[in-house]
Amino acid sequence: MINRLTARIRELNAPVVVGLDPMLSYIPEQVKAAAFAQYGETLEGAAEAIWEFNRTIVDAVQDQIPAVKPQIAMYEQFGIPGLAAYQKTVAYCREKGLVVIGDIKRGDIGSTSAAYAAGHLGHVQVGKNRFAPFAEDFATVNPYLGTDGIKPFVDVCREEKKGIFVLVKTSNPSSGEFQDRCIDGRPLYEWVGEKVAAWGEEAMGEAYSYVGAVVGATYPKMGEVLRRLMPRTLILVPGYGAQGGKAEDLAPYFNPDGSGAIVNSSRGIIAAWKQEKYASYGALAYGEAARQAVTDMIEDIRSALGCQ
Amino acid sequence: MINRLTARIRELNAPVVVGLDPMLSYIPEQVKAAAFAQYGETLEGAAEAIWEFNRTIVDAVQDQIPAVKPQIAMYEQFGIPGLAAYQKTVAYCREKGLVVIGDIKRGDIGSTSAAYAAGHLGHVQVGKNRFAPFAEDFATVNPYLGTDGIKPFVDVCREEKKGIFVLVKTSNPSSGEFQDRCIDGRPLYEWVGEKVAAWGEEAMGEAYSYVGAVVGATYPKMGEVLRRLMPRTLILVPGYGAQGGKAEDLAPYFNPDGSGAIVNSSRGIIAAWKQEKYASYGALAYGEAARQAVTDMIEDIRSALGCQ
Repeated sequence: MINRLTARIRELNAPVVVGLDPMLSYIPEQVKAAAFAQYGETLEGAAEAIWEFNRTIVDAVQDQIPAVKPQIAMYEQFGIPGLAAYQKTVAYCREKGLVVIGDIKRGDIGSTSAAYAAGHLGHVQVGKNRFAPFAEDFATVNPYLGTDGIKPFVDVCREEKKGIFVLVKTSNPSSGEFQDRCIDGRPLYEWVGEKVAAWGEEAMGEAYSYVGAVVGATYPKMGEVLRRLMPRTLILVPGYGAQGGKAEDLAPYFNPDGSGAIVNSSRGIIAAWKQEKYASYGALAYGEAARQAVTDMIEDIRSALGCQ
Repeated sequence: MINRLTARIRELNAPVVVGLDPMLSYIPEQVKAAAFAQYGETLEGAAEAIWEFNRTIVDAVQDQIPAVKPQIAMYEQFGIPGLAAYQKTVAYCREKGLVVIGDIKRGDIGSTSAAYAAGHLGHVQVGKNRFAPFAEDFATVNPYLGTDGIKPFVDVCREEKKGIFVLVKTSNPSSGEFQDRCIDGRPLYEWVGEKVAAWGEEAMGEAYSYVGAVVGATYPKMGEVLRRLMPRTLILVPGYGAQGGKAEDLAPYFNPDGSGAIVNSSRGIIAAWKQEKYASYGALAYGEAARQAVTDMIEDIRSALGCQ
């Protein structure tokens, strides 16, 4: 899957992933009204609105981008119906040929991580039958518990040719509180980055490892150091756009050959229709607005990387 | 909820929580066969077996203990039907008067943590209606992203009178890889512990804060230091029993008055029927075996704490 993802990034010349993190406030009133008319103002109604919204966005952008990243929390908050919409979204995106990065940020002690890895990237056995319940291609994983919380994910990745992105340096304002603290002269995120590189050696694809890293666009100097520390690690870069990361800051996340990173934007794409810049599309053409926002984002990144 | 939990611990003189982490291998063949007869060897069949198993365990032990801790990964691995069994288990335990600690170990950037907090401890709004999708009383939370990943949980806790347990020092063998690294002369887990105490000051119950901590039974010396650093923090102590933590190591986790900690056992209770010690109950009396294992655990802890 890592080979497929890097190949698709190259073919499309688009190191871009669209975050499918639908808040109800991003969904046009008409879409919500139609869902509520069918299911009422219920969790099922919210889930239906999210699913319809996602489907339109995905149909509009699917040929432009290699991957999507649904944030499971935005679905999980609507309980079982919300999680069913997550699962449906994952399946639909894979049908369309998109690589799906499940932004689930799971991580626990070994036996528990093994259960998450099976349910999201692998298979579970029930009697004589095997099932792949959520079936994402990649998942994001939290490293706080150390190697034995990560290894079950790596094992499943090797078996199923899937991948993970381990949180190294996150994009949020207070990420430095623990991640930047100095240990033997170097910040914690560098120690985590080194471990990610080491875990990744056990699960190498062609150019990059099945074990990737998350490094926020909001911290480009740290991105530069981490790029060097993890030369064969694909870096998933959140924080571009709405969170404040700028295209001119992205170069350090890439290797000299222009590969090695994929940049996420969520709100900036899926809620583009709410921005002044794309307002002329009108609420009901939110798919077209998202498509234009993806075009603009790809342009922005290509020009910042000097590979237009 | 923290006041209710500490009161129930005191009333029962039982600082004990039973982890409802059902693996299919813990469930007697007859229970699985009945579920599979109804739903086939499917995810629905697995979920039904888990639910029946949980119900019997809960009925058997509910008057002995203040709280249960379902580990969501064990349900999530069976997809949507598994998560529906989790939700049903949470609701059933609350009906029985048990405090429910959802072992979900979520944690993300602010807006995403807010969604997890709403879905698990709070409410979501859909049109004019409000829903509490998972409705646990407490949730476990990962601190790697710092204050802005925790604060949305604390806000919901204050509003809903619920609680969280933040991972400070986990029970697994490689927890020290990052958590024990030294920062300005003190290990990371102490810095996290100090933050937990600070976050907790914003959300105080009577004796303890709504913001608790997870500190593994397998590291009693660290437990002693953390107890001092977080005097008004309830400590959730996993790792007793099957993971190797012993009762005589538990004293440091408690305050001098005997309050301040709650000790979890999962496998040791729910799969007691598979242990030689309880084998005489037979597979179908797994509820009674669990009840006896709880009695023995409470005895073991009381005698180690000298409060028999």
